[in-house]
Amino acid sequence: MTIKLAITPGEPAGVGPDLTIALAQQQWQAILVVVASADLMRDRAKALGMPLNLLPYSENCQDIQPAGALYIVDVPLCANVTAGQLNEANSQYVLNTLHQACQMNLRGECQALVTGPVHKGIINEAGIAFSGHTEYFAEQSNTPEVVMMLATEGLRVTLATTHIPLTAVSAAITGPKLDRVIRIIDHDLKTKFGIDQPHIFVCGLNPHAGEDGHIGREEIDTIIPALEVLRQDGVRLTGPLPADTIFNPKYLQQADTVLAMYHDQGLPVLKYKGFGQAVNITLGLPFIRTSVDHGTALDLAATGQADVGSFRIAIKEAISLAKSKQ
Amino acid sequence: MTIKLAITPGEPAGVGPDLTIALAQQQWQAILVVVASADLMRDRAKALGMPLNLLPYSENCQDIQPAGALYIVDVPLCANVTAGQLNEANSQYVLNTLHQACQMNLRGECQALVTGPVHKGIINEAGIAFSGHTEYFAEQSNTPEVVMMLATEGLRVTLATTHIPLTAVSAAITGPKLDRVIRIIDHDLKTKFGIDQPHIFVCGLNPHAGEDGHIGREEIDTIIPALEVLRQDGVRLTGPLPADTIFNPKYLQQADTVLAMYHDQGLPVLKYKGFGQAVNITLGLPFIRTSVDHGTALDLAATGQADVGSFRIAIKEAISLAKSKQ
Repeated sequence: MTIKLAITPGEPAGVGPDLTIALAQQQWQAILVVVASADLMRDRAKALGMPLNLLPYSENCQDIQPAGALYIVDVPLCANVTAGQLNEANSQYVLNTLHQACQMNLRGECQALVTGPVHKGIINEAGIAFSGHTEYFAEQSNTPEVVMMLATEGLRVTLATTHIPLTAVSAAITGPKLDRVIRIIDHDLKTKFGIDQPHIFVCGLNPHAGEDGHIGREEIDTIIPALEVLRQDGVRLTGPLPADTIFNPKYLQQADTVLAMYHDQGLPVLKYKGFGQAVNITLGLPFIRTSVDHGTALDLAATGQADVGSFRIAIKEAISLAKSKQ
Repeated sequence: MTIKLAITPGEPAGVGPDLTIALAQQQWQAILVVVASADLMRDRAKALGMPLNLLPYSENCQDIQPAGALYIVDVPLCANVTAGQLNEANSQYVLNTLHQACQMNLRGECQALVTGPVHKGIINEAGIAFSGHTEYFAEQSNTPEVVMMLATEGLRVTLATTHIPLTAVSAAITGPKLDRVIRIIDHDLKTKFGIDQPHIFVCGLNPHAGEDGHIGREEIDTIIPALEVLRQDGVRLTGPLPADTIFNPKYLQQADTVLAMYHDQGLPVLKYKGFGQAVNITLGLPFIRTSVDHGTALDLAATGQADVGSFRIAIKEAISLAKSKQ
């Protein structure tokens, strides 16, 4: 069966529509269904001087679009769009696109969801509680826990905690939390990535992984016991290792993912290694979801200057994951 | 004047003596003075099958040693050494070498100090309070505050806090602390590195540098005000920036150092970028001090398998810094 991807360009005043149009200029081995305003997409293509043929989408379509074309699920804008200018009147439009794309995946009509950047601030200013794509899709799909993965060529980093203050990290790393997170990672590496016996490398929380309790006790009190239980259940784990040695090439060759305890322990290396070529993947959802790893870049909208790197990788990775799952 | 370096191989049962002997096989543009037991050095050279000519050191020597030779300040062992086996009886020996090398630098007889790895645990087991080279040299030289820098080709990372538990980091990052740390970095980049107007890039403490207070308030309450005062005093600063974007090549081209708020925020990238080729430099001391970035590797002692990469860079960097200062 031909793989179908739902794509949400995200914030209409940002670079999401531009990147979607730019990437539609190439031929893909999957049906790309953009969930967005057809008017917006046409206007932006005109501004960029790029051809764009929008094909009406139906659930039964089986033919891959040619280069320069995209299937579209037309979601009407709430207000006119000026590239580069946020407008809270379109916040509901953005959520409408996410909702439709999510439903298309929950219904099994599409095999993956690829998201462009949204602007949380402007959605919140419209009076809508929204803390991010990931949380939104988790709620829409009744998923109690999701795990954020960032991936680039040769390295996948997963996070035990994400966007919380540094002072809140230690308390958030509990035995049950680690247990849930690692089981999700193990499950998704098997089912979504097609890896038979995933090998997960786990960072300690403290410098030098606590150095036997001399620099903090979380490794001894929480992390090591949690890993022990998981090992007894057959999960293949190495660690906890110090974060400044775990990214050694000899470990990375063996690791299917490196689990960092918090955001700035794992993502600086990932982003350094894969600048502009990293993709955000949500584990734990009942469908495959990838995303760009950057923001709306409002100043670059409609200029033709936005870098397609991360969006391209997000689409490629979604196709690759959907194929592994088939 | 010919540059003189004092070198302490450190733990006698570890790879420090091996690396010193291996690096003595090449010609250097400086006088290398090893501060260690002559018997130990001869025995280890024999075990490695490498020539080693030990020349008696005097403060007036001006001739660079040929390849295969080292000047020596002979510090007697307290007990026999078996390669690979720690012996607390030699802890005092290790401290004696550090003391002598430090004094040679404080007296101005040498222009830099290069240290091999020591084993903190065995020194502590001998009943000697010792928390590391850096702290020891700070105390010996009455230096109230030092700053740890790790450097590799194209990147220098400095740390606002070092070997403390993650939960202690936020409280340790005070305005006065940041002020002292950044002034030391600025001063040493000028005086030891010969950089006229150093440009320091500063990480935030929280993910996304706190995202305007949404993910922690330390940036707003502490870091931004501290940087503002320093900027008014002419210190060239950029930040606070998110740790996962600060290592972007476009920033690194401009940065003379990246200041991380804590160990695992800055060192994973540094070690990933410069694996086996990183050097530890102590800022704030009244003399130049560089060090290997690895431990004693007891299992590799006397095997000839130890990697000289970091020790070589430590010597090269010490010579380069001593030359900039001349």
